[in-house]
Amino acid sequence: MSDIITMVAPVNIAVIKYWGKRNEELILPLNDSVSATLDTNVMCAKTSVCVSPNFLEDEIWLNGVKESFSNERMQNCLREIKVRATVEKSVDDVFLSWKIHVCSENNFPTAAGLASSAAGYACLVSALAKVYKIKSDVSSIARLGSGSACRSVYGGFVRWHSGVKIDGSDSIAVQIADKSHWPEMHALILVVGDTKKKISSTKGMRISTKTSDLFQYRIQNCVPKRTEDICEAILAKDFVKFGEITMKDSNQFHAICLDSYPPITYMNDISNKIIELIHKYNNFHGEIKVAYTFDAGPNACLYLLQNEVPKILPLIQHIFPSSNPDTFVTGLPTHCEMINTNLLELFAQSNQKDLVKYVIHTKVGDGPAEVTDGSHLLDESGWPINPIIT
Amino acid sequence: MSDIITMVAPVNIAVIKYWGKRNEELILPLNDSVSATLDTNVMCAKTSVCVSPNFLEDEIWLNGVKESFSNERMQNCLREIKVRATVEKSVDDVFLSWKIHVCSENNFPTAAGLASSAAGYACLVSALAKVYKIKSDVSSIARLGSGSACRSVYGGFVRWHSGVKIDGSDSIAVQIADKSHWPEMHALILVVGDTKKKISSTKGMRISTKTSDLFQYRIQNCVPKRTEDICEAILAKDFVKFGEITMKDSNQFHAICLDSYPPITYMNDISNKIIELIHKYNNFHGEIKVAYTFDAGPNACLYLLQNEVPKILPLIQHIFPSSNPDTFVTGLPTHCEMINTNLLELFAQSNQKDLVKYVIHTKVGDGPAEVTDGSHLLDESGWPINPIIT
Repeated sequence: MSDIITMVAPVNIAVIKYWGKRNEELILPLNDSVSATLDTNVMCAKTSVCVSPNFLEDEIWLNGVKESFSNERMQNCLREIKVRATVEKSVDDVFLSWKIHVCSENNFPTAAGLASSAAGYACLVSALAKVYKIKSDVSSIARLGSGSACRSVYGGFVRWHSGVKIDGSDSIAVQIADKSHWPEMHALILVVGDTKKKISSTKGMRISTKTSDLFQYRIQNCVPKRTEDICEAILAKDFVKFGEITMKDSNQFHAICLDSYPPITYMNDISNKIIELIHKYNNFHGEIKVAYTFDAGPNACLYLLQNEVPKILPLIQHIFPSSNPDTFVTGLPTHCEMINTNLLELFAQSNQKDLVKYVIHTKVGDGPAEVTDGSHLLDESGWPINPIIT
Repeated sequence: MSDIITMVAPVNIAVIKYWGKRNEELILPLNDSVSATLDTNVMCAKTSVCVSPNFLEDEIWLNGVKESFSNERMQNCLREIKVRATVEKSVDDVFLSWKIHVCSENNFPTAAGLASSAAGYACLVSALAKVYKIKSDVSSIARLGSGSACRSVYGGFVRWHSGVKIDGSDSIAVQIADKSHWPEMHALILVVGDTKKKISSTKGMRISTKTSDLFQYRIQNCVPKRTEDICEAILAKDFVKFGEITMKDSNQFHAICLDSYPPITYMNDISNKIIELIHKYNNFHGEIKVAYTFDAGPNACLYLLQNEVPKILPLIQHIFPSSNPDTFVTGLPTHCEMINTNLLELFAQSNQKDLVKYVIHTKVGDGPAEVTDGSHLLDESGWPINPIIT
């Protein structure tokens, strides 16, 4: 039996959105996308993997529940890892023939537009790469699990190049800058709903690609320039430019969803209230201090510099009162400053509690990392330590 | 003193949306738009006008309240009417020098995305045209009051040609077909909110024109073909084609609003619930039976053929329960059929009452008409009969 390898991998939240595939099977995107990788100390997937001649079949447990390993995307990742191991001659054939056990957990709600599959596949593929001793870039393998997972293979700010090759070999993630480049970049995730989304990204992209009349124009004429501009903004640590592009691209992605037929709506009234709040807040300050972005769900991700966190958090708490104010903000420690009264006057408090359920305070962080404290999810024989018996 | 002229004029609801001006002063649009004119027996503006040597100044009362006649748009309409009267030599110079009294009412909520200004200006201009005995097309004068008002100058189905001339003289409304062409075309207006909209159409258009990256593509590449196609669909009485284009163009208009910066959101969660309902309903029937369209507000206008009304109304009443079911549906008389139980199972009843406040049942109707029953809004001396004293 191999050593048990346990890795954590981060969530990433795109600022230039990936929406639309040029190849569904290989998960090749129609446009480049850009994201920030978020601190694994706050949100992460954690995956333990081992192989053993004693295992009768490949098995996987997700959040304690045994799932099928026959899932095509999982199969593709494992197959590609083994192909890579064969090419790199990193392990011997006997080792390659052993069956695998995978046990994985997320410490945040799954499939609510919180990029859980990105962290999950980045973690799986990173752990497999470790077990099979692969040295080369595995972002293109993570991509086979979930497109945006390739961006979670690196820390800091990451660009996923769509690539042009038919086999997808150039559709890989590349780090723009690591987390130390702009350590002041923080994020607040406002969890509005944690139920599963109505239309999966895969299905949504397919509908948009086929039916939105505006879609091709976005891909060809809007995204390329925005991608270059936001990479420049990141390298120059120009928050105003970064924020404006981030907000515009989020809005355009949702506009494309609405232009699809039938239309797709991921944001709701609370999301729109958050958008209004941020624009009012920025207007009050005369420049962009906070930028929102929304993935395929109603939750907001706010990007902002560290010194802005104690200023806007109390405002969020005021506008969206919570039944559990003590546990409303999770993640990185923070404090709250007094709200400027002139600012406060611009906003009405919601008369309904818990419209925003909680806030996750995090920051830009590193890519996948091995867990060395021995806190594996598989026991010494390679079986889950805490399985849920169903 | 002149005779008191009283006219009613209709609301129109666009199926190809007008959004964006090529000239703000002359209210010249960037694209053609298409609408159906709705029955004045259900919804209308009513306006009484007279001129007299006894009046000291031009005065106007809107919904009982005295308003300023110095409003630039009102001034433009009156001035153009007088220019036209001069050119046509329809009245003498003394008559032209007399001051005017105008009293106008809407029988539906104003400025909630229910096209109140369109009906209002169409009515004002039609009444003025009658007083000043103008024979030529006045749609271009109504346009100076409110762009879409030009479409309310005709009944049935109407196309507003954007025109190309700098002076706007070719930016006029033309009837595609009168109401007798497709008398089965009915409409249900689902009133979701009757508060004034947050961002006026004028301001919203300006933001979209300046900031939406997708806007020009819509104008140049999407709207022209849609306009031709929906005119064909109307002439061929092809409801499926009419409905599909109507829904797509509504969605695209709101997509452009969302792509604007800052983004503009007119629809809300209830609007989106209605959209979902209509797509599910059409899917169940395997073809488009009902089409939604949304103007600059959360209210839905559903276009459908007459025989569909008793089928979908009970479903709407089921999904959006009302505290006042007896007065929930206003306008044209209707009955309800039993809901197909297989259809009913697809929908959850909202647990909150009055999300849809009421429904206006109407149909395609005629253009402005003179009121001949003597029910003027001005008394014999030309003063409002029911002014609100503030």
